[in-house]
Amino acid sequence: MKIVIVGGGAGGISTASNIRKIDSNCEITVLTRDNKVAYSPCAIPYVLSGKIASFDDIVMRTPEDYKSKNIDIITEVEVTSVDSNEKTVTYEQNSKSTEIKYDKLVLATGGNPFVPPMDGVNLEGVYQIRNIDDGVKVQNAINDAKSAVVMGAGLIGIEIAFALMEKGLNVTLSEMMPQIVPRSLDKDMADIIVDYLEEEGINVVLGKPVTKLIGEKSVEKVCFGDDEVMDADLVIIATGVRAELDLGRMAGCEIGRWAIKVNEHMETSVEDVYAVGDCVESKDLILGSNTISQLGTTAVRQSKTLARTICGKKSNFNPVLNSMVSKIGKLEFGAVGYTSSFAQQNRIRPIVQKIEALTRARYYPNAKPMDIKVICDSEGRIIGCQIIAEERVAERIDTMTLAITEGLTCFELSNVEFAYAPPVSMVTDPLVLAVEEVSKKFN
Amino acid sequence: MKIVIVGGGAGGISTASNIRKIDSNCEITVLTRDNKVAYSPCAIPYVLSGKIASFDDIVMRTPEDYKSKNIDIITEVEVTSVDSNEKTVTYEQNSKSTEIKYDKLVLATGGNPFVPPMDGVNLEGVYQIRNIDDGVKVQNAINDAKSAVVMGAGLIGIEIAFALMEKGLNVTLSEMMPQIVPRSLDKDMADIIVDYLEEEGINVVLGKPVTKLIGEKSVEKVCFGDDEVMDADLVIIATGVRAELDLGRMAGCEIGRWAIKVNEHMETSVEDVYAVGDCVESKDLILGSNTISQLGTTAVRQSKTLARTICGKKSNFNPVLNSMVSKIGKLEFGAVGYTSSFAQQNRIRPIVQKIEALTRARYYPNAKPMDIKVICDSEGRIIGCQIIAEERVAERIDTMTLAITEGLTCFELSNVEFAYAPPVSMVTDPLVLAVEEVSKKFN
Repeated sequence: MKIVIVGGGAGGISTASNIRKIDSNCEITVLTRDNKVAYSPCAIPYVLSGKIASFDDIVMRTPEDYKSKNIDIITEVEVTSVDSNEKTVTYEQNSKSTEIKYDKLVLATGGNPFVPPMDGVNLEGVYQIRNIDDGVKVQNAINDAKSAVVMGAGLIGIEIAFALMEKGLNVTLSEMMPQIVPRSLDKDMADIIVDYLEEEGINVVLGKPVTKLIGEKSVEKVCFGDDEVMDADLVIIATGVRAELDLGRMAGCEIGRWAIKVNEHMETSVEDVYAVGDCVESKDLILGSNTISQLGTTAVRQSKTLARTICGKKSNFNPVLNSMVSKIGKLEFGAVGYTSSFAQQNRIRPIVQKIEALTRARYYPNAKPMDIKVICDSEGRIIGCQIIAEERVAERIDTMTLAITEGLTCFELSNVEFAYAPPVSMVTDPLVLAVEEVSKKFN
Repeated sequence: MKIVIVGGGAGGISTASNIRKIDSNCEITVLTRDNKVAYSPCAIPYVLSGKIASFDDIVMRTPEDYKSKNIDIITEVEVTSVDSNEKTVTYEQNSKSTEIKYDKLVLATGGNPFVPPMDGVNLEGVYQIRNIDDGVKVQNAINDAKSAVVMGAGLIGIEIAFALMEKGLNVTLSEMMPQIVPRSLDKDMADIIVDYLEEEGINVVLGKPVTKLIGEKSVEKVCFGDDEVMDADLVIIATGVRAELDLGRMAGCEIGRWAIKVNEHMETSVEDVYAVGDCVESKDLILGSNTISQLGTTAVRQSKTLARTICGKKSNFNPVLNSMVSKIGKLEFGAVGYTSSFAQQNRIRPIVQKIEALTRARYYPNAKPMDIKVICDSEGRIIGCQIIAEERVAERIDTMTLAITEGLTCFELSNVEFAYAPPVSMVTDPLVLAVEEVSKKFN
């Protein structure tokens, strides 16, 4: 059996590895535009800030490492066409075209950074962060830059802005929505992070889109709204990622609202064509509707299901909640499930409680404030949670993810046991305090 | 309605507070031997080590604070009898006897440290850790002591031994069982902690019980087994706690194998007599059998149910898993559910996997090793988990507690979402790696 995988990101590479773990015989070829594979793009901001010494450190394996597992990775190629009737893929390398046959085709084409249509986006000094090469370019640009504007205050935007600030640049973080991280956080929680960013010296501009980039050869100024102009010799565009669908369309795959449609086995509508990662739609766990979950963790989990499917074993990829976490400076923040505004948009009346607790017993040194917001539906079923603190956020998000996955109500979670010791928690865990408080709203 | 509560520990005081939150009118009287209330005995080792500056810091509220909530706390009294027919309680204070009536009686009598019957336990320099007064005595004794033996390597024993070592004493930690923390950890995991204790300079003696304490007026020597003798001018007895049952028996309450029997509403077998905390039996969540759960968190959770029961509201206290966590020096360790040896004793054939993972992405600075052991029954249902690392243990125990509570199998938990960012986790969470590994044993 010959398996061809298009794309060398988390979805493509993990699929290759996971297939090889099950089947030691099949032929596996991965085609990628990139010159590196098996690295975590999530780590790029931490290399820019200097926390991780070098981009080499975040590359876990080379194409040669995969060779030893009998996985053939062909780098720096552009796949130009797919024929799902003839079962062929054509790719170009150094202007030379090659056609290869497949028995099973995996589309792991990922996403492309969305670049808002405006003047000046092609000036020098304007970057997107797609891969390590982009990271290296920005790292070089930092040395000569004094000021930067980061467009887009999603996770990557915030993390890059923070890294540039840590490197001594004068940084503006710009978001056209009236709050940062609008997909995962409600405005009251997002504002806690804005306060911290501002304390650290980052200029945060909300609700006023960048309208134009100005410069001769290199970018020099950024225009906001109608009137405001700001100096910037470095601009990072981090305004989101759109699924790369060209090959999926060419293969004849059914495309949904956002991306390639796949079933729970990661099969597309076309026989022997599969898709995984940022280029596919997932099911939302709460409402069962279609959604996109462009997270590395989602791609990795999908690849396990896909590998089993391709190898003829049974496996389902479950609906997603898009649980996420980030750490900027000393602040850790995370979220899972619906925000209250997303719930409202989906005709769920959210019952919401925000509390302030502590990360350790009140009397224990270095107990830090922890802000928790819990969102329930009108029956008390937990549908979302957002947490911000200087420690111990990520795993609490995981506990809430499991609670939502299992369909727990706030009343039920109030009765669950939580471990306690003064250096690591409060005697009644912050999560329990939060669900107890929201429970009162149902009396 | 007049409610009398015997005992001023976590169970008694929380019951008083929780009743008051529901009912602002009833009369509440708490009778306690202690001169302080509302402190966390779990914090005593951290005061001894100096991490918390003073015992005053761990007292959250005074009896006067409760007065303002119309809760009457009578300290330093001994309750000498209970008459559940006449509904009276008699207590002694300064050799004066007082009888009071009750409508509802709560027994929160806690437990007494178990002192092994042996020569020398009444010598000076030999202490138990029941309350703050004991803590103060030990704190004073530390100044003159050079060497200490701590008998019993449960949580309190380990934490006290570590604190004494941090204060510069030459410390031996002695456990008659062949491993430390036998109730919560398997030997292979316990040995990781032993290695750390020994690295830090603590002498750990396993499987050889203390047989005698020797001294003129004060303790001078400790005998182990038949032959070994060791100098010690301070001995801490931390060999466990036995439920205090005298008043329960006097009231006519049915007593189980270990403690007072209560139903899920915290009612004893005697009308209008309730019990809570270290003096009651709980149901075990996995097998449904009776067990004891002498944890502060259990007492606090039981008190919420009990307060609702007394106030005529519906509430059930759920079966327990005894989830626990501790931090000694830089090491955090926790456990929930059954150890593999406890499973075997209960005729469950445990399917077990121990893995080593990391607390952060491999390339992120200060990623620490994390040891995880997962225990499943023969169907794959998770029944226990033990974790040791320098960070992020407690909340992972909580996630596993929820997984066990919900009856998840290792296969199901493998498919659950976990949040990821390089500074706080691995792309596949350590817990997922562990349940994936144990899942392979079922193929």
